[in-house]
Amino acid sequence: MKIGIIGATGYGGLELMRLLHQHPEVHVIDLYTSSEEGTVFSSKYPHTTNLYDQSLLKIDHAQLIDYDVLFASTPAGVTSQLLPSFIGKGPKLIDLSGDFRLKNSRDYELWYKKSPAPKEAVEQSAYGLTEWNTEAIHKAELIANPGCYPTAVLLSLLPLVKERLINATGLIIDAKSGVSGAGNTPGPMTHFSETNENLSIYKINQHQHIPEIEQGIEQFGNQKTPVTFTTHLVPMTRGIMATSYAPIREGVTEEQLINCLKDYYEGRPFIRVMPDSPRFCTKQVYGTNFCDIHVKVDSRTNRATVVSVIDNLVKGAAGQAIQNMNVSFGLKETLGLHQVPLFI
Amino acid sequence: MKIGIIGATGYGGLELMRLLHQHPEVHVIDLYTSSEEGTVFSSKYPHTTNLYDQSLLKIDHAQLIDYDVLFASTPAGVTSQLLPSFIGKGPKLIDLSGDFRLKNSRDYELWYKKSPAPKEAVEQSAYGLTEWNTEAIHKAELIANPGCYPTAVLLSLLPLVKERLINATGLIIDAKSGVSGAGNTPGPMTHFSETNENLSIYKINQHQHIPEIEQGIEQFGNQKTPVTFTTHLVPMTRGIMATSYAPIREGVTEEQLINCLKDYYEGRPFIRVMPDSPRFCTKQVYGTNFCDIHVKVDSRTNRATVVSVIDNLVKGAAGQAIQNMNVSFGLKETLGLHQVPLFI
Amino acid sequence: MKIGIIGATGYGGLELMRLLHQHPEVHVIDLYTSSEEGTVFSSKYPHTTNLYDQSLLKIDHAQLIDYDVLFASTPAGVTSQLLPSFIGKGPKLIDLSGDFRLKNSRDYELWYKKSPAPKEAVEQSAYGLTEWNTEAIHKAELIANPGCYPTAVLLSLLPLVKERLINATGLIIDAKSGVSGAGNTPGPMTHFSETNENLSIYKINQHQHIPEIEQGIEQFGNQKTPVTFTTHLVPMTRGIMATSYAPIREGVTEEQLINCLKDYYEGRPFIRVMPDSPRFCTKQVYGTNFCDIHVKVDSRTNRATVVSVIDNLVKGAAGQAIQNMNVSFGLKETLGLHQVPLFI
Amino acid sequence: MKIGIIGATGYGGLELMRLLHQHPEVHVIDLYTSSEEGTVFSSKYPHTTNLYDQSLLKIDHAQLIDYDVLFASTPAGVTSQLLPSFIGKGPKLIDLSGDFRLKNSRDYELWYKKSPAPKEAVEQSAYGLTEWNTEAIHKAELIANPGCYPTAVLLSLLPLVKERLINATGLIIDAKSGVSGAGNTPGPMTHFSETNENLSIYKINQHQHIPEIEQGIEQFGNQKTPVTFTTHLVPMTRGIMATSYAPIREGVTEEQLINCLKDYYEGRPFIRVMPDSPRFCTKQVYGTNFCDIHVKVDSRTNRATVVSVIDNLVKGAAGQAIQNMNVSFGLKETLGLHQVPLFI
Repeated sequence: MKIGIIGATGYGGLELMRLLHQHPEVHVIDLYTSSEEGTVFSSKYPHTTNLYDQSLLKIDHAQLIDYDVLFASTPAGVTSQLLPSFIGKGPKLIDLSGDFRLKNSRDYELWYKKSPAPKEAVEQSAYGLTEWNTEAIHKAELIANPGCYPTAVLLSLLPLVKERLINATGLIIDAKSGVSGAGNTPGPMTHFSETNENLSIYKINQHQHIPEIEQGIEQFGNQKTPVTFTTHLVPMTRGIMATSYAPIREGVTEEQLINCLKDYYEGRPFIRVMPDSPRFCTKQVYGTNFCDIHVKVDSRTNRATVVSVIDNLVKGAAGQAIQNMNVSFGLKETLGLHQVPLFI
Repeated sequence: MKIGIIGATGYGGLELMRLLHQHPEVHVIDLYTSSEEGTVFSSKYPHTTNLYDQSLLKIDHAQLIDYDVLFASTPAGVTSQLLPSFIGKGPKLIDLSGDFRLKNSRDYELWYKKSPAPKEAVEQSAYGLTEWNTEAIHKAELIANPGCYPTAVLLSLLPLVKERLINATGLIIDAKSGVSGAGNTPGPMTHFSETNENLSIYKINQHQHIPEIEQGIEQFGNQKTPVTFTTHLVPMTRGIMATSYAPIREGVTEEQLINCLKDYYEGRPFIRVMPDSPRFCTKQVYGTNFCDIHVKVDSRTNRATVVSVIDNLVKGAAGQAIQNMNVSFGLKETLGLHQVPLFI
Repeated sequence: MKIGIIGATGYGGLELMRLLHQHPEVHVIDLYTSSEEGTVFSSKYPHTTNLYDQSLLKIDHAQLIDYDVLFASTPAGVTSQLLPSFIGKGPKLIDLSGDFRLKNSRDYELWYKKSPAPKEAVEQSAYGLTEWNTEAIHKAELIANPGCYPTAVLLSLLPLVKERLINATGLIIDAKSGVSGAGNTPGPMTHFSETNENLSIYKINQHQHIPEIEQGIEQFGNQKTPVTFTTHLVPMTRGIMATSYAPIREGVTEEQLINCLKDYYEGRPFIRVMPDSPRFCTKQVYGTNFCDIHVKVDSRTNRATVVSVIDNLVKGAAGQAIQNMNVSFGLKETLGLHQVPLFI
Repeated sequence: MKIGIIGATGYGGLELMRLLHQHPEVHVIDLYTSSEEGTVFSSKYPHTTNLYDQSLLKIDHAQLIDYDVLFASTPAGVTSQLLPSFIGKGPKLIDLSGDFRLKNSRDYELWYKKSPAPKEAVEQSAYGLTEWNTEAIHKAELIANPGCYPTAVLLSLLPLVKERLINATGLIIDAKSGVSGAGNTPGPMTHFSETNENLSIYKINQHQHIPEIEQGIEQFGNQKTPVTFTTHLVPMTRGIMATSYAPIREGVTEEQLINCLKDYYEGRPFIRVMPDSPRFCTKQVYGTNFCDIHVKVDSRTNRATVVSVIDNLVKGAAGQAIQNMNVSFGLKETLGLHQVPLFI
């Protein structure tokens, strides 16, 4: 397979390159950029010396059409313009940005403050939450890879919402992320001296992943409701934890919730429903495509606490994108994604 | 004033020594220990060289009775035995452990799994949440200094609960703490290689601060209800953030919540109700006795998000203990606690 | 005393404000800026709410002349132009930048790549290494506060060099710094995701503190020699460790080196010569004006390893500047600088 | 191939399991322990759920003899007793401990304070610095895998020493390591609250890797000399940087040093001689078997600064062990070790 990566110099691009390097079906990886054409990639990122010594290429429609897969890892507002013209022309398109995720264009305008992608292209795209949309992903020409937070949230909640074991209306999601989610552009919020040894809360009630989560709960869980979703910045590079609180249906037990999750995810190798242990933490999935889920019920309040952890750059971005590529081509879902977590 | 610190070698003791060193009314600080008698303190903690070069003293009732104030910073189950015999004998007693916080001894047994302190001693003690119990603290011989989490939670919620602007019944509190809250005993949960670059959730629905929070909401806020309270371990040394979610009373606005907090805390120098800013974070109170509070209302869900930050070792332990000492002796509340936060 | 801080929005300025807040002789602190005139300081740095709520003032010669002390904490090349006109006009001038440190203007041009300050102003200035230049500092109108690395290096080596116990010609200094030394301007080298969990070496043989160290060794130690000096960036916010290696004079013992240091620094409260302990580390001086020194001799190689630690923002910048202010005004050296280190 | 790991619960064992999972020739991995027999591995380390769910096995000679390779990752003093009886009995033995590294048993006793391994076994073993001892490794039954620090130091210095471009007699090596090198046993030196935001120096002139470095310089570089070697603990989990300083031979240029390194390591895929770049850092090899080397010459002092970085758990332990296994079996050196560094 021949792969083109558009927006190769960002962290999403970097992580695609890290993982695709180990994919047995991938033989060509070309790197495209809008701003650093001609730069030798490994001179910009010396850790890729001897691995990615090629020059960054200029984004060019005629060239790009020749790839089997195009991954795009660009800021919001770029692929809405760039990708529609490739639909049906050959390459499978996997977009890691938010441009095609929201089916309702007014939501996109409201939360992203940008012009939406063409309606038809959005309709043709499949939302790439692999475990929940496998068929559509397999057929689609354009895959809208989910946001990092929605991936962690939806994977852990959808079975419980769909089975009405929890009530989505009372849902409160307290999410925490490592700093790499903010990308590679330096700024005050990611300046080491002000981020290290510090925990911040940001974008209260305003994060653009809120409508994506609500859309997923409606599309796959069949409940339509606004949710409370809050994000925190943790002094670490990788990792997302989503701690969700929801009222349980009268009489439902912890065991039922756990079994529901296990049933839904039987045969899905990247979802692990975890028992009690001294530590449930982000590092248990570090560098890998796992999503681990843990559930507790508090009989004092009749609420469930549902916790999930992912690596925001893998299952929350590049890893799920490759998983979607595998599904798209009918390959084994885990191909190239066999890594053991770097717990240490 | 002559001060004795019992349990001087733990982090609570260390922080008392750091802060009392700058207190203008304190002239003697003696250090007591149950296990390291005779050790020169600065040989154990070299950062105190030239500051605390004295030997650790053996806990001895006859000697201890001669101090103006005894601070105890010991594990649960120690002061319940040790302190009652000092009541009324001279020294003001300020206990940083949980032994006298819970008025209901069955709660203590249930959550701490230890024998409770004598009923009479508990009844004579005052709960040391300074801004809410000033009079009782001033009069009491024994002050039960609050837990770190309850301090952050109660200070931010009590005005809103008491005025019925939010409904405590639906309260969900997602708390995050730095690692120093776990004390100075090494173990797997605090081993650097497994804690760094990692975020953990722990003690879901089982933290011993839950009954303390519920007691405070009832005592000072006049609502009796179980709450959902969850704790996370953040890869940083100091700092607590409590993110609380609550339904608001119909029609209540963000401005009303903010004004309520400002009204309650007018004239209380350590509480800062903060406006919107790019970053609301734990480091803005680092090393100081401040508790900063921030509130947002989401009109989509009719819920308030109430966030507070403290330094767990200062306002969450030693700083509030010294504030209580000041109140106890009729000194200015801020004496010895004038530090500017180490934001950097 | 009335204090003006020029360049108040950088980390040097912030730290001056943190420490001066506790200085008993300081009653006015005004903040000056070249670029953010009119901004309310605490809106820019919310951690200073209720502490520094004043507006930033425009740099104005007529106003500035009325202060007792002007601290300047500005990038290289600013004070060389700004400060000379204030000499002899009233305020004591304490410059935290490198503009007046190097007596040889060609060295300044070569290493800083900027135009040097006027020769006469440089000659009138005193190099502010407090323990080694007390008399000159007391008399001078303009004090050139030392760089962070030279402070750590010179304090630990000068007694040994001056007494010819070690040979400066073979000196190799391997220095390590926290990230705050790089200031508050975001960039790739200080971007959290690329700095966290990472150790870098930078500016090998090219750091502008090299000529300052060599000048100090010549001026105070009477040996003229080039030295090898290398700097590393450690994933922490504060702290400098300088590990220096030098051949010892035939027959000299570890004890002699230790005694030499103790003799030189007798009566100097901020210098602590430390015995063996399980940990010699940067955090033992965190937030304070201490410089701790530790020495070992290796009989296998006849070399001494001399290690010193400081807080780069305190003894390496704002703390030493205030110490110099105290010396300048004949106050007790330690006034306002009594803090106990935040080891935890 | 059938693999047995002895001492599977330590960090060396964990990292072997992470890497061997991706090795195409490895089909069985069994885990042995001296102390936790019967424990399900993934219940101890939940991040290995679905990957290593087997029980830990008791160390048993009869069983162990049936493997193709036995890796031992145990504390000093264990394999000296355990492994000799396996020599010549079948399995290739790769020992990650220090027990067989030092050819001179008095050095072992002196620096390790333990009884040395039997002389004959030590003589039969090959020192596993892959790039320098390939032939001996290929033939040996027992491979003494090098220490983490000696690997970083020797790889970067040996070509220059052997060609007499630098003088080993004046060698000063200032090494820095992440905390995982200290293993998984909790203690004060690795307690998060005392290690985070802190840089320590330890074991000055006393590290047991000193004789190993000196032995390597003599064996492969043909210079016999004591060296100065110092170690620092950096607040990060993984990574070693060795900064070495040495006098250069009269007239030698930076270019000559670089070319010498490039010549020696031509065709060795894990050694990268790096040009100037804004950042030379430990994270550029994170999670991989690379050793990156960077050299600068200072014409002012006629000294070379030679810097190398490795991942202490990979090239410094498990990765090099697998590389040695590949060499031992005549496989391609890079098999199973194709990872791209996790720079982010």
